[in-house]
Amino acid sequence: MGSIFGSMFRIATWGESHGGGVGVVIDGCPPGLPLTAEEIQAELDRRRPGQSEITTPRKESDTVEILSGVHEGFTLGTPIALNVRNKDARPEAYSEMREKFRPSHADFTYERKFGRRMAEGGGRSSARETIGRVAAGAVARKILRLSEGVRIVAFIDRIQDIAMPPSETAPDAEAVEATPVRCPHPATAAAMIERIKEVRAKGDSVGGSIRCHITGLPAGWGAPVFDRLEADLAKAMLSLPATKGFEVGSGFHGTFLPGSEHNDAFENRQGRVRTMTNRSGGVQGGISNGEELYFSVAFKPTATILQRQATVDKEGNATELMGRGRHDPCVLPRAVPIVEAMAALVLLDHAMRHHAQCRTFSFEGSDGGGDEP
Amino acid sequence: MGSIFGSMFRIATWGESHGGGVGVVIDGCPPGLPLTAEEIQAELDRRRPGQSEITTPRKESDTVEILSGVHEGFTLGTPIALNVRNKDARPEAYSEMREKFRPSHADFTYERKFGRRMAEGGGRSSARETIGRVAAGAVARKILRLSEGVRIVAFIDRIQDIAMPPSETAPDAEAVEATPVRCPHPATAAAMIERIKEVRAKGDSVGGSIRCHITGLPAGWGAPVFDRLEADLAKAMLSLPATKGFEVGSGFHGTFLPGSEHNDAFENRQGRVRTMTNRSGGVQGGISNGEELYFSVAFKPTATILQRQATVDKEGNATELMGRGRHDPCVLPRAVPIVEAMAALVLLDHAMRHHAQCRTFSFEGSDGGGDEP
Amino acid sequence: MGSIFGSMFRIATWGESHGGGVGVVIDGCPPGLPLTAEEIQAELDRRRPGQSEITTPRKESDTVEILSGVHEGFTLGTPIALNVRNKDARPEAYSEMREKFRPSHADFTYERKFGRRMAEGGGRSSARETIGRVAAGAVARKILRLSEGVRIVAFIDRIQDIAMPPSETAPDAEAVEATPVRCPHPATAAAMIERIKEVRAKGDSVGGSIRCHITGLPAGWGAPVFDRLEADLAKAMLSLPATKGFEVGSGFHGTFLPGSEHNDAFENRQGRVRTMTNRSGGVQGGISNGEELYFSVAFKPTATILQRQATVDKEGNATELMGRGRHDPCVLPRAVPIVEAMAALVLLDHAMRHHAQCRTFSFEGSDGGGDEP
Amino acid sequence: MGSIFGSMFRIATWGESHGGGVGVVIDGCPPGLPLTAEEIQAELDRRRPGQSEITTPRKESDTVEILSGVHEGFTLGTPIALNVRNKDARPEAYSEMREKFRPSHADFTYERKFGRRMAEGGGRSSARETIGRVAAGAVARKILRLSEGVRIVAFIDRIQDIAMPPSETAPDAEAVEATPVRCPHPATAAAMIERIKEVRAKGDSVGGSIRCHITGLPAGWGAPVFDRLEADLAKAMLSLPATKGFEVGSGFHGTFLPGSEHNDAFENRQGRVRTMTNRSGGVQGGISNGEELYFSVAFKPTATILQRQATVDKEGNATELMGRGRHDPCVLPRAVPIVEAMAALVLLDHAMRHHAQCRTFSFEGSDGGGDEP
Repeated sequence: MGSIFGSMFRIATWGESHGGGVGVVIDGCPPGLPLTAEEIQAELDRRRPGQSEITTPRKESDTVEILSGVHEGFTLGTPIALNVRNKDARPEAYSEMREKFRPSHADFTYERKFGRRMAEGGGRSSARETIGRVAAGAVARKILRLSEGVRIVAFIDRIQDIAMPPSETAPDAEAVEATPVRCPHPATAAAMIERIKEVRAKGDSVGGSIRCHITGLPAGWGAPVFDRLEADLAKAMLSLPATKGFEVGSGFHGTFLPGSEHNDAFENRQGRVRTMTNRSGGVQGGISNGEELYFSVAFKPTATILQRQATVDKEGNATELMGRGRHDPCVLPRAVPIVEAMAALVLLDHAMRHHAQCRTFSFEGSDGGGDEP
Repeated sequence: MGSIFGSMFRIATWGESHGGGVGVVIDGCPPGLPLTAEEIQAELDRRRPGQSEITTPRKESDTVEILSGVHEGFTLGTPIALNVRNKDARPEAYSEMREKFRPSHADFTYERKFGRRMAEGGGRSSARETIGRVAAGAVARKILRLSEGVRIVAFIDRIQDIAMPPSETAPDAEAVEATPVRCPHPATAAAMIERIKEVRAKGDSVGGSIRCHITGLPAGWGAPVFDRLEADLAKAMLSLPATKGFEVGSGFHGTFLPGSEHNDAFENRQGRVRTMTNRSGGVQGGISNGEELYFSVAFKPTATILQRQATVDKEGNATELMGRGRHDPCVLPRAVPIVEAMAALVLLDHAMRHHAQCRTFSFEGSDGGGDEP
Repeated sequence: MGSIFGSMFRIATWGESHGGGVGVVIDGCPPGLPLTAEEIQAELDRRRPGQSEITTPRKESDTVEILSGVHEGFTLGTPIALNVRNKDARPEAYSEMREKFRPSHADFTYERKFGRRMAEGGGRSSARETIGRVAAGAVARKILRLSEGVRIVAFIDRIQDIAMPPSETAPDAEAVEATPVRCPHPATAAAMIERIKEVRAKGDSVGGSIRCHITGLPAGWGAPVFDRLEADLAKAMLSLPATKGFEVGSGFHGTFLPGSEHNDAFENRQGRVRTMTNRSGGVQGGISNGEELYFSVAFKPTATILQRQATVDKEGNATELMGRGRHDPCVLPRAVPIVEAMAALVLLDHAMRHHAQCRTFSFEGSDGGGDEP
Repeated sequence: MGSIFGSMFRIATWGESHGGGVGVVIDGCPPGLPLTAEEIQAELDRRRPGQSEITTPRKESDTVEILSGVHEGFTLGTPIALNVRNKDARPEAYSEMREKFRPSHADFTYERKFGRRMAEGGGRSSARETIGRVAAGAVARKILRLSEGVRIVAFIDRIQDIAMPPSETAPDAEAVEATPVRCPHPATAAAMIERIKEVRAKGDSVGGSIRCHITGLPAGWGAPVFDRLEADLAKAMLSLPATKGFEVGSGFHGTFLPGSEHNDAFENRQGRVRTMTNRSGGVQGGISNGEELYFSVAFKPTATILQRQATVDKEGNATELMGRGRHDPCVLPRAVPIVEAMAALVLLDHAMRHHAQCRTFSFEGSDGGGDEP
């Protein structure tokens, strides 16, 4: 349970770190979208291991195959199945994990919930699971961009205490991709890379925060009450491995201000209603207001470290576990496209819901008399 | 759209600040639960206005009526309809709001989304909407307490920069209720009350953060991937009015630590697998691990302030709006029971899902031969 | 569980035959629809008891109240709560039912499922439960009529063996309402009324079938695979009390024909693609083809009869039960507006889904190059 | 949209007749179920073409592969992805279909809905789509059988006017499989086979009805109101290609009886509450009563016939279409395992829901005092 997401543009992901592969089925994709495997592959390549000197050196080509829903280059409106085969599996590397629970991993909780687990590579709790999300997100992003003019750019704004200067507007996507650490501020990026190399040398790991900006968003997307736009984004982000927090707009920092300084006054700017400041972060009452939407996500330091740690085995006996293998000392660079993908999935779903409820029907010309129900 | 929550224990809330009332329908409640209107009323009384010197002086008795689903003192297993009539409406107080958008409120976005809105009191975007949530949450809490031994306690841990000393364990519920500000640390509570009175005197407002602890949670609730326990909690919290952020466990602060300090080592404590620290906050891989689950929610300062603010009217003309009326200078004291209610709704839903998938079927004695599909 | 229906235009019904009342919450209603309580009341009046000499003489005014979601005569886009208070309750009439299970009623199954039940009037299994459906359906019908030009007309085409002459096209709604039995063929209607009076005199009951025609339906509503238009209609109809069967188009009768006679050939009629016959019943592959959609629903004879029947009591002892009270000897006349209501709910939901997926986004001007995902 | 089914045991199917393949993702499968590809394959083999002299001679091995969710022979509780590659594709055989709409097929409606379609083999509207259903149903059946003792057997009870003698109890599964036509009454089966061969010789096709019996069902599965057990079964069956009707229990025939003859009296039989007759078909008020559940499904004659038919082309011009290729003159023999699969999916979902709501929580020992909500 829990592997289906969305209400209109719905995705079902599947797959473990080991076994036949990972993938996703998209149900509800609009027909007529031009779509190729190459476009999806481009997003997967941003997520895959071994892409730079600061990620895990594991080699996984993660080649995506479109199995259905696309015909002669266009989406049919029927489910799109996207599969990626698993490779480079070394189950023998995981024999110790079968017996011992890795600290701050999902080994123990999966075992308690399901009575069993795939120990190799973490099974379903592996970050490989996000491949399906990124593949589906690539489709959602393209629809948002082509049809709605909505663009999404995420980036690392902080690794531990190394933070880039604050800014209220979205950076250039090219600037983000210009460094392997996906921080658009070159000096900060250099310091971040340095830090990551340092902790890796010690067999340790680091975390930080990813910020995401959405531009071109019209006013009116979102919903009152439970499915507020920021609520669905919060769920999407906290559903990602290693996340511990979410902020929209002024976030936790804004709670230190009085209301008189925090409120976003309205003004008429070039004929459009705009806010003078954007502490709301583009959403008010759960609905987009036409300003830039931005949010931040906290990622904890990678749980797998190459150091000796105290733990227990399946029988509950105290023991130690020594991390081995090829792991990311910092998950954030590869998490950037995942954050973008999840944001795209949430936004497209809300776009569809907004159209369905508020832009589908017309009662003009109705006299409201209601002479016949 | 967006007023239905949950997958098994599902609630549908309705109602505006003005009009016939507010309420909720609960679908999926287990049968046989002893339930009275008085118990639900007790939770609503913790939420209602006018309960103390630091909340709005508006008098709303908010009396709940059980219209269905309970018979001879026990739940039937059929939908429970809970209604609260609106009173004390003064629509004339809102004439200015019909024309002008209140800064950092939902007036503008509702108008853009729906083409119309109920200006009086904010309509559906009013915090009165949360009455239905608290009423349903009271039912969920009782089930969790009676049947599962799960208890939920929330409290204010910070107003602006006034924070109580940090603690990793839940405070006593009585200590929380002992002060009108619902902070269990008396000295801090006194300072918070002082601050709230000060800002109210200036016609200003303040925000802060609410922390929530869940005790007695068994290991195994939650799910991999999209419906992680913390993801559903994040959505639930960000769906509340005035919220801007969510953290679970070590949250944003934990991202400053290296993995070697952040990880929660396992140990065998009195025959049970426990973690030595609890930076995970009781969830690992989206599933509870049997430790205390705790999270924090950021609430912005109340948007309604009794000061003159720049805004625009419906035609887009620049104008000013002077806040009037009886408002909370700080929403947090009344938000405490709302946070608890939403947590209860999420947890009960996950309890039902966990039982359905993992504790319903038995394959013991199966030879696995599968001679017949 | 099971009291929420729909994916976009969602309704949650509540209420038992006795207790506070019955009602419905509609979530997802488009904004801007002119709506009054009188319009909804008109549909409820078609459903209520005591409306004619062939229905139960129970007097239930069933007055609906709009509690939310409508402001100044128009829908807000927020949840619409519609309540009807219960009256005329005579719980003392049901003391025998507390101990004995009525044959072919839901007494036994509710008791087994929930461990308890409201014996008075059948509780949630009472046909009073359909009031919420009819109220919500009245809203859906108005939207379909005003905005889409879709009209729905149901009628009784057979009581036991008394059937009206077959026709492939919809009768006039006025002709249906012209007789209390809601059969548009006067001679057949007279015979049906006679039959109903006869069986009532014997303390017995009768069933039959209701046919429903939908006109003005555009091609393209519905979906492949699970949510075929006829599948959702079948579910909606079989969810009604006393239903035992559903047929669309040629139904069971069509299975006697060879394919060469059953197929609907296409032709170009006045510039539009039409089928020469309509054995498909307006749906092909789960999607409307622009022809009239029609289906039939089987309603069994009323289970409550004023005759002595064998049964068991709660302890499992053999006993007898003598039906008493004021019951419909035939549920079909009052079921006609309920069938229409359910059809409206299904169609509107599919209209919203169709728009969301297939009419919301535009990729024209796209070069399909997909240089950026 | 429309390719996801179920609320707890949820499946997402994908795939077209041509392209990469077809398959299904199961989300919510209980962990610990022993499961092999061979068991699933056995069910697919009952569905596949070319299995007997009365089905299409197309050769499709339809080999299933388990890609995830199963580890060391047992289900993990995570999504199970089941894939079947497409083979034997002859797209050149479909050039005429690209331009002309086949009568009583989904060609026209898909084109109108989506603006495009895969003409080869019907794309998503092909009966190949049901492969994913049968694969998922094989898993559901095994759970029902091993853990709940519930067994499902479907069979053809009528081809056109050739009907087997009526019976209220389930036939033996082996008797059903003993003939290629899957009718457990040998003499009737022989006549059916004869009829199918006759119509095939003429290039024509036939339909009929499939009946399904479910034994071992406990009382209490199902739900009041919208998700009645028979309502969900009706939806499941009408979601199958070529279906036009559904009956549960006495169905349409029962509507000819008076209530006094139709009602199922209760009795105490060997210490258990049973009904003397079973016109209810095992469900009362939407909930199973412990008797055998049975229903019938109408399948129209195959739309593809090897005869010349009038139709129009994509431009709306009148034309003719001559059916070619290898088609089933009667879909029912291969539909039997599909009906069983859909029934299994509905029943397992309801089993999980029933447990979650009614068998998970215990309030015994509660004093009902509710001193604390």
